[in-house]
Amino acid sequence: MSFELKQTKGRARSGTLRTAHGDIETPFFMPIATKGAVKTLSSTDMKDLGAQILLSNTYHLMLRPGLDDMMGLGGLHKLMGWDGPLLTDSGGYQVFSLSKMNKTTEDGVKFQSHIDGSHVELTPEISMQMQAAIGSDIIMQFDDVAAGDSTRERYQEAMERSLRWAQRSKKAFDSSEGRQLFGIVQGGTHEDLREQSAKGLIDIGFDGYAIGGLSVGESREDAYRIVGVLTDQLPEDKPRYFMGGGMPEEIVTYVSMGVDMFDCVLPTRNARHGTLFVWTGEDINPDGSFYKILRITNEQFALDQGPIDAHCDCHTCKTTSRAYLRHLFRTGEILAFRLATIHNLHFYLTLMSRLRKQIVLK
Amino acid sequence: MSFELKQTKGRARSGTLRTAHGDIETPFFMPIATKGAVKTLSSTDMKDLGAQILLSNTYHLMLRPGLDDMMGLGGLHKLMGWDGPLLTDSGGYQVFSLSKMNKTTEDGVKFQSHIDGSHVELTPEISMQMQAAIGSDIIMQFDDVAAGDSTRERYQEAMERSLRWAQRSKKAFDSSEGRQLFGIVQGGTHEDLREQSAKGLIDIGFDGYAIGGLSVGESREDAYRIVGVLTDQLPEDKPRYFMGGGMPEEIVTYVSMGVDMFDCVLPTRNARHGTLFVWTGEDINPDGSFYKILRITNEQFALDQGPIDAHCDCHTCKTTSRAYLRHLFRTGEILAFRLATIHNLHFYLTLMSRLRKQIVLK
Repeated sequence: MSFELKQTKGRARSGTLRTAHGDIETPFFMPIATKGAVKTLSSTDMKDLGAQILLSNTYHLMLRPGLDDMMGLGGLHKLMGWDGPLLTDSGGYQVFSLSKMNKTTEDGVKFQSHIDGSHVELTPEISMQMQAAIGSDIIMQFDDVAAGDSTRERYQEAMERSLRWAQRSKKAFDSSEGRQLFGIVQGGTHEDLREQSAKGLIDIGFDGYAIGGLSVGESREDAYRIVGVLTDQLPEDKPRYFMGGGMPEEIVTYVSMGVDMFDCVLPTRNARHGTLFVWTGEDINPDGSFYKILRITNEQFALDQGPIDAHCDCHTCKTTSRAYLRHLFRTGEILAFRLATIHNLHFYLTLMSRLRKQIVLK
Repeated sequence: MSFELKQTKGRARSGTLRTAHGDIETPFFMPIATKGAVKTLSSTDMKDLGAQILLSNTYHLMLRPGLDDMMGLGGLHKLMGWDGPLLTDSGGYQVFSLSKMNKTTEDGVKFQSHIDGSHVELTPEISMQMQAAIGSDIIMQFDDVAAGDSTRERYQEAMERSLRWAQRSKKAFDSSEGRQLFGIVQGGTHEDLREQSAKGLIDIGFDGYAIGGLSVGESREDAYRIVGVLTDQLPEDKPRYFMGGGMPEEIVTYVSMGVDMFDCVLPTRNARHGTLFVWTGEDINPDGSFYKILRITNEQFALDQGPIDAHCDCHTCKTTSRAYLRHLFRTGEILAFRLATIHNLHFYLTLMSRLRKQIVLK
């Protein structure tokens, strides 16, 4: 088994996910290296930050450098100088969210590149081929993603098609080199569709199960409800991955429900807008009182020579005052993005390690 | 004496420039931290790169954070977390090159901020006050800079005014905390004006002498000729600073003429455009055969897994292939700017340390 459950506390779990590029302690957070780099940071930086695994986007890497060059380069680990685990999404979500024109058929999706408008095709088989070329350790099935405000009929169609594409993904999946394949549960906020999706995926059988199609505009209550239903239904002995969530208190909540894996653009994207997560000193809990948001560009920090976060020991907090970081943002210095990104990622990664400790210390 | 000459080889010199924030081995190169940060890099990065001193721009810091905040912050060393020496220019050149509207009178310059169009005034006295607030170790006189294509009359006017402003700068200069004040030789490419400027400055007496008003479009031969004339005339026992030059072979040439200090935007600006300096393995000499230019965005590097520069041991060359750096530039990743800047600065700083060794090893 590649997933070993070690401790539980209520429904929360802690364990180890083994990959060909190393073990990962769960629950964990994956910084997003969309195009082969976590924005502003290097692979060395990610190692220094203690990131256990990175997530890259198949859609972006398929456009640049493309399948042929990725094969010629020997995969993304080698290209970006990252020897830890990598997970890749399948491209389905990006086609839906980034491409101006796309047309979905039973075969797959045809779309126009958001970069140069060229016509590209993505199918379960092509997605598996591209993710294998990337050399991803955890490969996601190709799925059909319904928009957040879709009708029940569209959710049902997308969920059922995603099941058929799950089957095709598994058939096309090359499990050599210790690669793992995850299925993705769809079905919007409809519990019955979600349960049908989960059951269908479990019947096919995957190395792990992701909850997709949330964090797309639904209410937080709806998301919590769906995740609660699914973590009851998904197999105990397989890792569970919540795709594309969330604020710190959402991650805490999902961990308490038994989710093991997370990714999110919030720490990195917010960082680039000067929006920083700082600890309050309170214990970690689902009400979010353990952190607050600091907008570093505010005038009040002009002469503040204190660290961004007195509770943090990241590189930024050890070297940079609030006044300096504000000055860097205000004067448009790229360094600001880097320093803020380091802090916010350190916050999310520390949140996960604190959550792991809470589960182990009953 | 703050400047100690240790070795000469022909007209080239090596020595030590002592400042309140540490000694600097000459000849040296100053990376440019225009607004209090070398673009894309932190003060920690600059220390890791072995930069001995940084240069900041009074004009930019006067606009943001401004005089009052800079005083409130206790100076730039504290703000940017840099405990090494700092040199600041006087603002004269930036007013001339960046401000849309400026009006020079005998009193000083009135100009519109290039950021918000507000009206600002810079005089020798205000420049001295701002540079003292910054806490600069080496302060430049306020000067009148003539455009590169000016008439002899304009060069003469600017040079003579710069001499009067040199006198006023010296009078307003606060020499506490070990600060040093440098005069700036002007006069375009007219040898007699340059000699008159140098003589006038020497009569006033400064801690060092800068050659200003070159690298503004004149021919390389004219610049070499003027520098050759001036290094004959400037005092042996004071440091000589060539402002705003040049390509590697120009720096080699100026060092061979007896110049001690350099700054230049080329390594950092070129880096951000993917233009990298790489060693050829040839000995350092004024014909420039010791380096070549590598445009990393070229198609030829798409699958090149070798380092940027096989002769270089910078962080970038140790961690990043040509293929990866090209991919990062091509996909617009900010990390590309950082990695390229580290390499180019390492090249310039290594060039200086190799030049120092050449002078010491006769």
